[in-house]
Amino acid sequence: MSIKTLFEAESIAVVGASHQAHKVGHDIFRNLLVSRKKIYPINPNAKKILGKKCYPSVLAVKEKIDLAVIAVHATLVPKVMNECAKKGIKSVIIISAGFSEIGKTELEKNVFDIAKRNGIRILGPNCLGVIDTAQKFNATFFNKLPAKGDISFVSQSGALGVAVLDWAVKKKIGLSKFISIGNTLDINVHELIDYLNEDKNTKAICLYLEGLKKGREFINSAKRSKKPIIVLKAGETASGLKAAASHTGALASEHAIYEGAFKQCGISQVNTLYQLFEVAQSHVLKACPVSLRALIITNAGGAGVIASDAFEKSGIEIAKIPEDLIKYISKKLPPEWSHNNPVDVVGDALPERYEAVLNIAEKEHFYDLIFLILTPQTMTDPDKVAQVFVDFRKRTKKPCFACFMGGRSVDKAKNILSKNGILNFEEPEYGAEVISKIGKCKV
Amino acid sequence: MSIKTLFEAESIAVVGASHQAHKVGHDIFRNLLVSRKKIYPINPNAKKILGKKCYPSVLAVKEKIDLAVIAVHATLVPKVMNECAKKGIKSVIIISAGFSEIGKTELEKNVFDIAKRNGIRILGPNCLGVIDTAQKFNATFFNKLPAKGDISFVSQSGALGVAVLDWAVKKKIGLSKFISIGNTLDINVHELIDYLNEDKNTKAICLYLEGLKKGREFINSAKRSKKPIIVLKAGETASGLKAAASHTGALASEHAIYEGAFKQCGISQVNTLYQLFEVAQSHVLKACPVSLRALIITNAGGAGVIASDAFEKSGIEIAKIPEDLIKYISKKLPPEWSHNNPVDVVGDALPERYEAVLNIAEKEHFYDLIFLILTPQTMTDPDKVAQVFVDFRKRTKKPCFACFMGGRSVDKAKNILSKNGILNFEEPEYGAEVISKIGKCKV
Repeated sequence: MSIKTLFEAESIAVVGASHQAHKVGHDIFRNLLVSRKKIYPINPNAKKILGKKCYPSVLAVKEKIDLAVIAVHATLVPKVMNECAKKGIKSVIIISAGFSEIGKTELEKNVFDIAKRNGIRILGPNCLGVIDTAQKFNATFFNKLPAKGDISFVSQSGALGVAVLDWAVKKKIGLSKFISIGNTLDINVHELIDYLNEDKNTKAICLYLEGLKKGREFINSAKRSKKPIIVLKAGETASGLKAAASHTGALASEHAIYEGAFKQCGISQVNTLYQLFEVAQSHVLKACPVSLRALIITNAGGAGVIASDAFEKSGIEIAKIPEDLIKYISKKLPPEWSHNNPVDVVGDALPERYEAVLNIAEKEHFYDLIFLILTPQTMTDPDKVAQVFVDFRKRTKKPCFACFMGGRSVDKAKNILSKNGILNFEEPEYGAEVISKIGKCKV
Repeated sequence: MSIKTLFEAESIAVVGASHQAHKVGHDIFRNLLVSRKKIYPINPNAKKILGKKCYPSVLAVKEKIDLAVIAVHATLVPKVMNECAKKGIKSVIIISAGFSEIGKTELEKNVFDIAKRNGIRILGPNCLGVIDTAQKFNATFFNKLPAKGDISFVSQSGALGVAVLDWAVKKKIGLSKFISIGNTLDINVHELIDYLNEDKNTKAICLYLEGLKKGREFINSAKRSKKPIIVLKAGETASGLKAAASHTGALASEHAIYEGAFKQCGISQVNTLYQLFEVAQSHVLKACPVSLRALIITNAGGAGVIASDAFEKSGIEIAKIPEDLIKYISKKLPPEWSHNNPVDVVGDALPERYEAVLNIAEKEHFYDLIFLILTPQTMTDPDKVAQVFVDFRKRTKKPCFACFMGGRSVDKAKNILSKNGILNFEEPEYGAEVISKIGKCKV
């Protein structure tokens, strides 16, 4: 219930609010003002911040406060927590760092005890906060709001979270909720999975994890999840484990154990941050192949060869086109076509040639997904081919993926694809890696 | 000698020149007009093309012709070749497709015999042509000229070549020469390696290969090469081999044999097209580590963990920082720093903190390369950190790589890096893959 308060709080105190730009306490306060919630800046040394009356402590606020965002020096956090308890606040986000991650376990335990005694739930400490794009609610110090979308992202690293948010804004990746969990002193990943499962704005859950304190609970929540979960698990190698230990202080244990657990729960495990979102998008777009037999269509033989290599290496089969169909396709294509999968429609292909192959493929069952490659030859019309593919996608249930390779010549076409829900990959290899990791569709 | 003519020809006939935009014969002719060379359009059905007097055949041209670019229907190529022979032309580029790659081996042999009898060298057939940026010389139908640069690219796939050129233009990757080899009926890869080795504008040689007809010669030329050679060898898997066979008709043999040969010649083998150029750029920028012990500096602990994983997986060691140095660094950094490699300068790091670590590292020998990670936190100044790194690079011989993660917040900083010769990777994983493939510096 208190996890809901993280997002559904109506009145919020920012403890450590500051009028100094680029200070964490300033930026969080400024970001929160954009939402429609009631926001109270708390700072004993300021009268007003950004035009809002400032209070010396939460106790000085007469109205009820649902949530406190705490951004003061770590040593002051216990005092603030006691004041929150007295004020009857039941949820806090502790942004402040300087706890167990640098060995201050006693201080952290102290904070935890105050929370337990007073029934307060804590997100953090040492975290970036939370974002809910649907409410334009930004309780972090990251200063832009990502586009509204269906993907929620839970990150164990705050700083990395900022980079991902910044990237998502640029790439126009739609997000629903962002949650930075920090040291997971109290609220842990499994509770967030449970919460996001009930959240109507979330269709896919992305996790960046270094280690789990509550493995059993995590597995149970993940198993219960009706929504796809995609994870990037860092701290995989000896070097990574060592770095993780000195980072969030999480006990990143044996990689194999995690891998097994993820598999058992139907979680997709990826290798890079951006893959997290590409796999999540595939789920949101319902582009989950029931099995991995690919039909590749290309106007560049070489790209077909590269894709064949990449697919085989990633465990994706190159579907076998039935003999009679090869004959039928031959009637529609010039004699130079490859007579095989990848279907090389040859460099001088106009959109009609792509369309002819798609039309033939539409009712066939020898493949499970389409991977359409385009290179910008002189006579190629990338925008129109994109439109042909978009139209085809509306008629089919087969997952459709694109690989429009090149520079400016394909920029507009890539926009057409992305606006119409087709994922495009810059190179066949990246596509192969992502497709091989999508897993079963849950959306 | 005749390979030189491909680039040094002063007078060029375009056989099959056309006034119809988007036709291959039109686009090549139009592209060639930009150069300072003497260009003759050849077409019996036209009087003028783009304002230039048109000739019915090369024989109708009075002046000497050094090179013919042939873009007529495949069946007409023997006739054109005979005319070229009569005219005394010693070099031709056959753009036309429709030869051995679709089973027309006799037609191709016929063309070869005419060439042999008359001492004509052939590039192609079934190729895209050549580009020399230094001369603004574009004998292809790709309609943009990439930026001048130090990297030459030899491609066995023409269509893929177009995508790479288009991408290079957008990414401002500087190229010296581009050579599309097609079916390698005559001029083969090893001769091009020899030529590029003598070419003063080429500092690194990138190859996209599906198969080699002259393996022994290739190995000899590669071994002789004083310049770094980087190869993407497609047709690696069974599926890829099958696709390659129906593409250029090249006999793409066992992958292991190729891998062994490449290793033996000191050739770097990469996995993607874009990696080709990233590894080549590392050579051009003289960013070749003598050995693979990395010093990682980051303002995001999580990114340090990911980098540690990625580096270990790619065979790059995380350098051990000597104990006394750890103590010394501790004097310059806040107590929360990681006390280890990756050096986590912590999220609130200003440029000075990065600078302090770089200054300390400058004269040390415990590492071979620097990988500097930045995530855009509220207080981070990405541009200034980029400048700090650029200044450092001027003082050191150690290869410097950057990983500025995020979106618009780091765009300007990435520009500063690239303008000053520091490669930036979007994610640590890509960086690790590229760095692990650079090999010994030859430039």
